[in-house]
Amino acid sequence: MCGQCGCEQGAPFTPEPTRIVLQRNLLERNEQQALHNRIHFEQHGLLAVNLVSAPGSGKTAFLEQLARQWPRPPIGVIVGDLATDNDAQRLKSAGARSVQIQTGDLCHLEADLVARAFDQLETRGMDLLMIENVGNLVCPTAFALGEHLRIALISVTEGEDKPLKYPALFRSVDAVLINKIDLEEVVGFDRRAALANLRDTAPQAEVFAISARSGAGVEAVMAWLQDEQRN
Amino acid sequence: MCGQCGCEQGAPFTPEPTRIVLQRNLLERNEQQALHNRIHFEQHGLLAVNLVSAPGSGKTAFLEQLARQWPRPPIGVIVGDLATDNDAQRLKSAGARSVQIQTGDLCHLEADLVARAFDQLETRGMDLLMIENVGNLVCPTAFALGEHLRIALISVTEGEDKPLKYPALFRSVDAVLINKIDLEEVVGFDRRAALANLRDTAPQAEVFAISARSGAGVEAVMAWLQDEQRN
Repeated sequence: MCGQCGCEQGAPFTPEPTRIVLQRNLLERNEQQALHNRIHFEQHGLLAVNLVSAPGSGKTAFLEQLARQWPRPPIGVIVGDLATDNDAQRLKSAGARSVQIQTGDLCHLEADLVARAFDQLETRGMDLLMIENVGNLVCPTAFALGEHLRIALISVTEGEDKPLKYPALFRSVDAVLINKIDLEEVVGFDRRAALANLRDTAPQAEVFAISARSGAGVEAVMAWLQDEQRN
Repeated sequence: MCGQCGCEQGAPFTPEPTRIVLQRNLLERNEQQALHNRIHFEQHGLLAVNLVSAPGSGKTAFLEQLARQWPRPPIGVIVGDLATDNDAQRLKSAGARSVQIQTGDLCHLEADLVARAFDQLETRGMDLLMIENVGNLVCPTAFALGEHLRIALISVTEGEDKPLKYPALFRSVDAVLINKIDLEEVVGFDRRAALANLRDTAPQAEVFAISARSGAGVEAVMAWLQDEQRN
């Protein structure tokens, strides 16, 4: 019953057990494929990184910089979008070997999609595989792809509170890149507040401030990735 | 089989019929609740609007402006986030009546969540209900909430290609707000290209350029909403 007009306002909410069980099965299936992917990446001598951000935060622009600056080119990029192969084309122009996954309606990458894209990637002479997830701060969180490292990218134009609003993702990452720092002053980004929010939500994560547009800060991210390769 | 090293690279992909059927059941259930919501909103004399954007595009900032400028205050806002009630607090400070939905892991609002939040909203003297969805350009698309109008908000910092990359959402909306136009020059946003992409993907949609920060352009959106109320 609606408290205001007394009309019958929908049935009372009940949990949906079928939905939960199915979700668990999907995740288990994905987890198995992710483990296989990881072994496969290692057989090919690759460090694999799952890069997650909101739409338009600058994942592709960052990867273009990485493709240009990485000391042992080329890097490989598997890139997911609902539609278009714009990003794969941009990355090829920047010198990466790139395979586009078009997910249709799917809001995140899954391990089997990555496995099939990886089959199309020429890995000879390559030591770094970046996987650019679909632009989404929620759904990619639960789906391992076989990555060694997971990175979240946020941009200063999005405000300081994203780690608080999307805690599950930020708890799951190894590093956070704060992008578009060339716009920090003009948008009035409060970096101290953002770092405090990251310390609360993602104390495990390395934090890097970068500008994918100018390339500032990308060197420090590369040094960290190279350290991780050695370990 | 992997084409490169000959290892067994995962099982061949097969569609998952259970998943598809379940999804359809969920959507049908949601559709029924959405129809009920819509009748309920009309009984209360409300125009209801579902507002969708990526994280950090400025949905809440736009709604703060709307709450301040709307000629017949207060407006009602039901706002969805995975965590925190930051947005509901901000909106109350701007003069709106606001109810926060914390979705936990859920990446979009559903009609039954909105129905329960609506029960907590005092609607007396109110003629506009805004529903701020979870920041996500994919998952909200398939879930009607009972709204009369659906609006997508994008910001100039996200680039020009979002309509091409998230076509299902843009095909489903009645209007698109291009936000943060005060940053248009500094980020080098190509408005002509963005409008061409919108014409291709969302020819049905009204398009408004706004700055939620300065309030520029919000008046035109309000005039359109008031027209829709009269129809």
